[in-house]
Amino acid sequence: LSVPDNYAIVFVQGGASLQFAMVPMYFKQEGKVFSYIHTGEWSTKAIKEGKLLGEVKILASSEDHNFNYIPDLKNIKIPENSAYFHITSNETISGIQYQTFPDSGNVPMISDMSSDFMSRPIDVSKFGLIFAGAQKNVGPAGIVPVIIRKDLLDKEKKVPSMMNYAIHVENNSLYNTPNCFGIYMIGLVMKYVKKFGGLKKMEEFNRAKAKLIYDTIDAGSFYKGTAEKNSRSLMNVTFTLPKPDFDKEFNSEAEKLGLIGLKGHRSVGGFRASLYNAQTMENVKKLVEFMKDFETKHK
Amino acid sequence: LSVPDNYAIVFVQGGASLQFAMVPMYFKQEGKVFSYIHTGEWSTKAIKEGKLLGEVKILASSEDHNFNYIPDLKNIKIPENSAYFHITSNETISGIQYQTFPDSGNVPMISDMSSDFMSRPIDVSKFGLIFAGAQKNVGPAGIVPVIIRKDLLDKEKKVPSMMNYAIHVENNSLYNTPNCFGIYMIGLVMKYVKKFGGLKKMEEFNRAKAKLIYDTIDAGSFYKGTAEKNSRSLMNVTFTLPKPDFDKEFNSEAEKLGLIGLKGHRSVGGFRASLYNAQTMENVKKLVEFMKDFETKHK
Repeated sequence: LSVPDNYAIVFVQGGASLQFAMVPMYFKQEGKVFSYIHTGEWSTKAIKEGKLLGEVKILASSEDHNFNYIPDLKNIKIPENSAYFHITSNETISGIQYQTFPDSGNVPMISDMSSDFMSRPIDVSKFGLIFAGAQKNVGPAGIVPVIIRKDLLDKEKKVPSMMNYAIHVENNSLYNTPNCFGIYMIGLVMKYVKKFGGLKKMEEFNRAKAKLIYDTIDAGSFYKGTAEKNSRSLMNVTFTLPKPDFDKEFNSEAEKLGLIGLKGHRSVGGFRASLYNAQTMENVKKLVEFMKDFETKHK
Repeated sequence: LSVPDNYAIVFVQGGASLQFAMVPMYFKQEGKVFSYIHTGEWSTKAIKEGKLLGEVKILASSEDHNFNYIPDLKNIKIPENSAYFHITSNETISGIQYQTFPDSGNVPMISDMSSDFMSRPIDVSKFGLIFAGAQKNVGPAGIVPVIIRKDLLDKEKKVPSMMNYAIHVENNSLYNTPNCFGIYMIGLVMKYVKKFGGLKKMEEFNRAKAKLIYDTIDAGSFYKGTAEKNSRSLMNVTFTLPKPDFDKEFNSEAEKLGLIGLKGHRSVGGFRASLYNAQTMENVKKLVEFMKDFETKHK
């Protein structure tokens, strides 16, 4: 729950979508490129905004398999002239998540952690900047916690004041009237996480929830996990049924049990169980029981 | 409560400060300048952001008298090559407000109405774009209602998606996850205003509240209104006492009666009564009684 002394935390209004533009605006430098890893919907959106503001290099992509894996970045070569190196720690639609983070050398690594922020401990010192739309794990939509390494702060950048991280830091998130309600709610959630036992406990909890579903998928050949095993997300478990004909029944039977919002994104199909911090073990157990019953009836 | 058919309403995250940048980014055109009227703190902030993004022309200013009046704009000549013409309908610090709006011809008139939006009826058709930070009259901080004339929408502008009004309009404010709580609260406030009798009734109410205080100021020579009479704001009534020595006592006595937040901004001194829509007549009467008592005791 704490960050190293050489980092600052600020709250910026808006969502991750504004950060997709704020990052390239702030880090833009003559002769430098914006480097990205392309892993799905959210990195696609970030890349789109980068392209509006400068030259983009895509260093690796999993588009060839419908974004069902995180590319192996062990030997990634990040161009020396990168203004930054951008990754998306968790992609909600295909259900993939970085298990470890690459080393970005002298290039600041930026991570959009909107969908797994505060779900597990993170070695902040690997990153130049971390941002997260609040609405998954930490608060209401409309506010973004940003963690930035202090040596990257430069108030003199020729960007609008609200797009200048240094101005937000200097004013302790009070350069303009902040989203008070959002910040207050995040404060309550932080207290809750602390009481819960901190991020290590939260990761154990999230891992236990995800394991129950992944084990159910892996136990037979009825369900099929969408993501490659070594890229599986703890936040979004995606899977398909043996026949798309079953989908409608699966969905309506699940809804009868109060298991809602399980339909997968149209680009992936099938189903997606979202296991953000607030999701209970009880609900996950109910889903797993239902999945087993449904399998028994239909196989 | 309604706008003409050729206007769209959207909700943009952030506050007026983000609009100060979004307007010049969106309207910027080769060879065009940004024209402003300079009337105080809020127009100063808007001008600062304009200067970061292009050439600014200040067409009129009341800085010569510490922003205590709205310049006469009856015969204002707006440069033909203006990308827009920006005014601030109410300045909270000096307590001045446009009583009528100028005619901007072919140049789109932009108004920051953050501090008097929904306090009185407005002829929307005079404006190209109206924006308002919600937190004065319509909702919680962190969300900005924007009214824009549809012919000014151009999705192809080379600006970040979140800074593109056309994208917000096309997606009905749902391009990204919106500030749901803020929008919901604004909905409740709109219902309240409707039930109250609409904007005409709201203006009558606000005018009656302001009149009580201005009449008390004008009744003698003890209190002195800070703003010129024909620029007086219905939202922020600013006044000084005959001796600055009285200030501390006035403030502490007022606080004992539950009349808080009356201290004026340091750049103006004295006192400021804010009469936003939510301010009650009962409170205003209490303030006026207190002012009369204080005057009797000290003159």
